[in-house]
Amino acid sequence: MKLSEIVERVGGELRGDGSIEITGVAGIREAQKGDITFLADHRYEAFLASTRASAVILAKNGDLGDIDKAVVVVNENPYVAFLRAIEIFSPRDHDDPRGVHPTAVIGEGVELGERITIGPHAVVEDHCKIGAGTRILAGSYIGFRSQVGADCMIFPNVTVREDSAIGDRVIIHSGTVVGSDGFGFATTGGKHTKIPQIGRVVIDDDVEIGSNVSIDRATTGITHIQSGTKIDNLVQIAHNVVIGKNSLIVAQVGISGSTEIGSNVTLAGQAGLVGHIKIGDNVQVAAQSGVVKSVPANTQVSGFPAREHSVSRRIWAAIAKLPDLAKTIKRLSKRVDALEKQLDSESISQ
Amino acid sequence: MKLSEIVERVGGELRGDGSIEITGVAGIREAQKGDITFLADHRYEAFLASTRASAVILAKNGDLGDIDKAVVVVNENPYVAFLRAIEIFSPRDHDDPRGVHPTAVIGEGVELGERITIGPHAVVEDHCKIGAGTRILAGSYIGFRSQVGADCMIFPNVTVREDSAIGDRVIIHSGTVVGSDGFGFATTGGKHTKIPQIGRVVIDDDVEIGSNVSIDRATTGITHIQSGTKIDNLVQIAHNVVIGKNSLIVAQVGISGSTEIGSNVTLAGQAGLVGHIKIGDNVQVAAQSGVVKSVPANTQVSGFPAREHSVSRRIWAAIAKLPDLAKTIKRLSKRVDALEKQLDSESISQ
Amino acid sequence: MKLSEIVERVGGELRGDGSIEITGVAGIREAQKGDITFLADHRYEAFLASTRASAVILAKNGDLGDIDKAVVVVNENPYVAFLRAIEIFSPRDHDDPRGVHPTAVIGEGVELGERITIGPHAVVEDHCKIGAGTRILAGSYIGFRSQVGADCMIFPNVTVREDSAIGDRVIIHSGTVVGSDGFGFATTGGKHTKIPQIGRVVIDDDVEIGSNVSIDRATTGITHIQSGTKIDNLVQIAHNVVIGKNSLIVAQVGISGSTEIGSNVTLAGQAGLVGHIKIGDNVQVAAQSGVVKSVPANTQVSGFPAREHSVSRRIWAAIAKLPDLAKTIKRLSKRVDALEKQLDSESISQ
Repeated sequence: MKLSEIVERVGGELRGDGSIEITGVAGIREAQKGDITFLADHRYEAFLASTRASAVILAKNGDLGDIDKAVVVVNENPYVAFLRAIEIFSPRDHDDPRGVHPTAVIGEGVELGERITIGPHAVVEDHCKIGAGTRILAGSYIGFRSQVGADCMIFPNVTVREDSAIGDRVIIHSGTVVGSDGFGFATTGGKHTKIPQIGRVVIDDDVEIGSNVSIDRATTGITHIQSGTKIDNLVQIAHNVVIGKNSLIVAQVGISGSTEIGSNVTLAGQAGLVGHIKIGDNVQVAAQSGVVKSVPANTQVSGFPAREHSVSRRIWAAIAKLPDLAKTIKRLSKRVDALEKQLDSESISQ
Repeated sequence: MKLSEIVERVGGELRGDGSIEITGVAGIREAQKGDITFLADHRYEAFLASTRASAVILAKNGDLGDIDKAVVVVNENPYVAFLRAIEIFSPRDHDDPRGVHPTAVIGEGVELGERITIGPHAVVEDHCKIGAGTRILAGSYIGFRSQVGADCMIFPNVTVREDSAIGDRVIIHSGTVVGSDGFGFATTGGKHTKIPQIGRVVIDDDVEIGSNVSIDRATTGITHIQSGTKIDNLVQIAHNVVIGKNSLIVAQVGISGSTEIGSNVTLAGQAGLVGHIKIGDNVQVAAQSGVVKSVPANTQVSGFPAREHSVSRRIWAAIAKLPDLAKTIKRLSKRVDALEKQLDSESISQ
Repeated sequence: MKLSEIVERVGGELRGDGSIEITGVAGIREAQKGDITFLADHRYEAFLASTRASAVILAKNGDLGDIDKAVVVVNENPYVAFLRAIEIFSPRDHDDPRGVHPTAVIGEGVELGERITIGPHAVVEDHCKIGAGTRILAGSYIGFRSQVGADCMIFPNVTVREDSAIGDRVIIHSGTVVGSDGFGFATTGGKHTKIPQIGRVVIDDDVEIGSNVSIDRATTGITHIQSGTKIDNLVQIAHNVVIGKNSLIVAQVGISGSTEIGSNVTLAGQAGLVGHIKIGDNVQVAAQSGVVKSVPANTQVSGFPAREHSVSRRIWAAIAKLPDLAKTIKRLSKRVDALEKQLDSESISQ
């Protein structure tokens, strides 16, 4: 789509070449050639020079300086204009409700909302309730008595086990399992007996869950993902975990049982958290960290065992110099040997 | 359910308020309010004070002390009574056999046991044998000539590839793949040619496998999970791996090809093991460890590379002090400088 | 199959007992009893003594020495003869095309090649193109407008999302998801708004992808897996990642967004790579490494943060001695104390 057409729909004043082709939308750091992006926050101004985006949405009062790309100047918050650009590029394949496919299997006592799509070979077990505008695509399974809210997107081959509760506008990607049994056993004499996992999973509004994620149901009570939280692929969320609002859980993170994560927390890729700890609001856990105890709010932690990031950085710097340090100590030892010898002989000589 | 009703069914003498509501069962450390738990092992007595359980099953001769929660005193092993409580709370959705769903596809020469459930859109290929009381739920796939024992539970969207052998009372959670090809290639001139993976997977009785687990078939011979072993979510088990009896493999662990794990081993979350090593019985591998060589029986290991846990702990303690150590060395260097200078001048002055 | 029968079909001269039973093929290091293997590269000669294989294919001019196993001597490159042995042992279950199963759902405008197998409950959405000889097994899903080349094997319960392009002879194992949305959000005021992921996934010829792998579609543009690359189980490949030719990505590796991997690269198990970096050709990344910056071609890296392997090894060796080093420093401190005291008193005494 031509930039000039986008400006017509998004609003604002175009400065630059309206004939360039815009192929997508992206954040200022991730943008590639052909993307339109936005700048709303002063802390990101530094990226304006280096972004690969072809066009940038800016506020009127922004200091434009010398920008070598097309600019769309808006009177409102540039982010709001950017959301309209997002709309233009959103995929449309599943926008038109297709109803219930003849091969889908719908159990007894199921309530289906309006404008619904239930794909081929999908299964909705007895006494489920599916909200208006929700799409449950091919091969997905919704277990007994589960509820899925309005305008959700359940991609193909998802499994939602019984008694789960899913809010509105939730997106779940393929291969993901919601409500598998928690890993709980009573052990005597070396044998492990399964503890029934009779709790549930509750997922609040506007949550997105990537592909091949495992979210276990609670032993009793609930495993709870709160509104606005986004979960990447291949993440493990154990029984009775609670994740607060608007947190980001990056790929391959593992969260052990009963751990509570606050709001606006970021857990970076492959981080692991032990069970029964609390991670405060706004905490950032670096990639591959191993978190073995609770972390207070507004803290950045990294490393194994995870420590405040500034401390970890000092330790890593020291580790990098460790081989040299060992040599220094060897030399010091010899110098002290020599000093002792010298003093000894001088004492004798005296 | 009221505690008094549970005591009626489990047996034993109630001390405390029988009218409290019991909502589940759990181990003494994991229990939450509303749970009933048990104490059978003296080593767990310390948890009696701190458990959040609402009721505890104890032996008659146990020293009760001052417990501020309801107690059920039994004449037998409290664990045995606890198993009866577990039974009360076990989910019942799939207890009544539903037979073969009309949308399921059953191949030629398939033997189906009695009291079976084959769910919607499940596929059982030619010459499979499925034991009595087994449930294969919606969308699951059982490959050619595979055998599944009695009273198994195969949750929705599981894939069991051809020629697998699964014992009795095995539980496999959704999204799990049993028998995918091992990662084996012959490489010449930079090109990788696939080595046919013509071995099988054998899973013994009473094994439980979490969701989104990958268990590769053997190149030749078998990949073998022995009886009573429990595997958590998102675990990788490569070709020709052997896991002994009653081991616990926690989420996101990766075990490389041909490695042999003993019995009653625990591999904690995100641990990784290289190929072709042996892990002895009763070994405990800490979370996120990287095990690069064989580990003798009855050992606890941790860290990267994994070492005996006591050694790792000493190393971690030293690492934590490393930045201070570096400063100490700097100061020591200066003090030795000064000593050398002083001695030098004194030597001259003499 | 008897070794003598294999020699008849593979060619070459048999030295040893032709009546032994050969049950499979394997690389010289991985081979077990009953396997036939090969030796084509002088660098692997050392393994000839230790291999558990029952028979080895060798070149005529190879120095045989004292080998206590059956040998097949060939005039050609032994690898080429070995490829014929591989053929003998390749599984045959899905060789005969079965056509489109009556329960499969094929959309409008789908082009199907000859000799095709579309399994039970598979779904091929509108306007897909599936090449000749390709097998799409039970429960797999191919999204709108996707293309799958010739002679591909898509195992059961795979999800290929819309607009994907898959080459010839590609193998995708069960549970894998190709084309899930990338993890991209625009964040303001703590709220995350989804960036539409409107790019695609392109997979070139002869790629193999293990089970439960997640490959995200690009935000815009393509996520690209180039020809001959092999990917193990439970691997995370984020949006806009490029992987070159003939690379090996071992189980549970995670590659963050927009990172570019060269050709003939090996990423060993559980390694993690941050986004927006470049890994040169022939790089080897050790297991569990954390790669936080670009790596030049022909380099081996390991550890966290990943460094050249020789440097990491020196650091690990120093870390192992760190507790002793700390003691040495304590002793050195005391010796310097004593020296200072002695010098002080001598100065006074003088």
